[in-house]
Amino acid sequence: MTLAKKVQLSHGGGGLEMNQFIQKLFFKRFNNEILSRDEDAATLPLSANTAMTTDSFTVSPHFFAGGNIGSLAVAGTCNDLAMVGAKPEYLSCSFIIEEGTDFKELEQIVDSMVEELATVDAKVVCGDTKVVPKGSADKVFINTTGVGRVLQPGISSRGIQSGDAILVSGDIGRHGACILAARESLRLEHEMSSDCAVLWPVVDALIQQNIDIRAMRDATRGGISAVMNEWCQSSNIQLMLQEEHIPVDDMVKGVCELFGFEPYDLANEGTFVIAVPQEFAQQTLNVLKSFNPNAALIGHAQSGEPCKPILHTPWGSRRYLDFPLGELLPRIC
Amino acid sequence: MTLAKKVQLSHGGGGLEMNQFIQKLFFKRFNNEILSRDEDAATLPLSANTAMTTDSFTVSPHFFAGGNIGSLAVAGTCNDLAMVGAKPEYLSCSFIIEEGTDFKELEQIVDSMVEELATVDAKVVCGDTKVVPKGSADKVFINTTGVGRVLQPGISSRGIQSGDAILVSGDIGRHGACILAARESLRLEHEMSSDCAVLWPVVDALIQQNIDIRAMRDATRGGISAVMNEWCQSSNIQLMLQEEHIPVDDMVKGVCELFGFEPYDLANEGTFVIAVPQEFAQQTLNVLKSFNPNAALIGHAQSGEPCKPILHTPWGSRRYLDFPLGELLPRIC
Repeated sequence: MTLAKKVQLSHGGGGLEMNQFIQKLFFKRFNNEILSRDEDAATLPLSANTAMTTDSFTVSPHFFAGGNIGSLAVAGTCNDLAMVGAKPEYLSCSFIIEEGTDFKELEQIVDSMVEELATVDAKVVCGDTKVVPKGSADKVFINTTGVGRVLQPGISSRGIQSGDAILVSGDIGRHGACILAARESLRLEHEMSSDCAVLWPVVDALIQQNIDIRAMRDATRGGISAVMNEWCQSSNIQLMLQEEHIPVDDMVKGVCELFGFEPYDLANEGTFVIAVPQEFAQQTLNVLKSFNPNAALIGHAQSGEPCKPILHTPWGSRRYLDFPLGELLPRIC
Repeated sequence: MTLAKKVQLSHGGGGLEMNQFIQKLFFKRFNNEILSRDEDAATLPLSANTAMTTDSFTVSPHFFAGGNIGSLAVAGTCNDLAMVGAKPEYLSCSFIIEEGTDFKELEQIVDSMVEELATVDAKVVCGDTKVVPKGSADKVFINTTGVGRVLQPGISSRGIQSGDAILVSGDIGRHGACILAARESLRLEHEMSSDCAVLWPVVDALIQQNIDIRAMRDATRGGISAVMNEWCQSSNIQLMLQEEHIPVDDMVKGVCELFGFEPYDLANEGTFVIAVPQEFAQQTLNVLKSFNPNAALIGHAQSGEPCKPILHTPWGSRRYLDFPLGELLPRIC
């Protein structure tokens, strides 16, 4: 059967067309021994120390510089696992597709997922496909839920202690700025692309070096502002951050000035913040820099009230870095 | 903070409003020790024999006789686990919410999820919330992904053998007929409700009785027609089914006649088909009937070509029960 060029309602009906549709679009591409058993549920050899996380992706536009909704879905879910010290192993993948969506676009999206999975040697082991009538969804939404083996237990946003060093794995705000620019059809002087990437390789390197990781979090929706505020609350600490040390690309700065955003509030999709004891700060920075030269030591934790992140400006003044408020950017991820 | 009565984009922005929104809507209700750790990923004590499954739910209308999208999401995912002999243990839960959705409706949906989870003692351990602008989705879509411990390994749609008995756990087509009636604002003489329910208790009872289960499948989208055809293909067998033994409620028959559907093609959300060796047929029937008096022995497997289900009518004629074709009912689950 030649597949229609656009998705039809029958492709989600549970009948013959759906069967063929998912065979051609998903099974062929995600091909692995567990998935191809095609039972109601996949059986997995997991360990007693398994991490699980879920994310739905609604990003608009679906394709952007540096990735698309598919690569984002794999990276986002793998990164949540990596942030608790877990190697991403198995993912589920569920598509909600609007009737009339181009089959070619779906193929591109799934191909990107396959590429992204390969960077971390993870597998899609089960899936689901729903097709909704035109107007009931915007093209395609993807849920990826992942499980992985925890290689370094005890990493927790509750574990940050006074004196710990705070580092960021690269320059911030690129995903948010990039989506914003795409939506506003902004022409930029130089090409800027999303930081969308799977973070397991760098986390794995940190674990291999026996660095005592206290906490890690990828700075997605709400940017590093949200992460810093959550950490202060969870660990009952203050975070002293040096504004001049927080790496922000000039293009991101430009987009922020144009639209009145703070780079700290912008979403990242392949950049994380990490807290380590002071004695591991330099070693951590070295590992981070070997993956991204823009990685930086941006501050430290200290006990004190209120439990909020405090931004020290280059001019000696200081201000609270507030939890982002308001609408920010809908459909950023 | 008092929550707004309708969901706003800021509730999905990753900032303070989202934090409060998910605390009040989800954490309060799904409350358990693993979820409340609130890390990027939940850490679970799983076994080496764990099953995993995923489903996204887009059912329309969101509320129907016998359930709503929330109870459906929990039942659907738990049932996929039960069908491979796994006790549902941990679920992820991801909401895509349209801006402007009533907060009250979301509360009802989550409350139903909590009730349904209690019937099987399963927990929601991680979640995600996205809010999309008005018109980008229809109110609410839910993804639930579940993991559970396999108590009886080896259940597989590839394992059916010639001579095996085929049984159904209750009368068929009620979910499909019920959604159809709700959409067409059909007034029925008697109340008819969806069969939406968690199937683990009955599956657990079968396992406790040491019944040698060859295959099980809940007959969701595509109804028993799809399951029977899939089994024939997977196990390379013919299925001989006695039409008069397949239980169909009169109301479902009526809806089918009115709209030109076959009850075999209609979706079920708490009814499954099971294949067991002939010597376990009566014992299986007894267990099924103790949960639902409409359970029935509907046929048997035999070797032979073509590998298709064959329906024997009460008048002695026979016909193939075909794989459902065409649009069927979009947004049935």
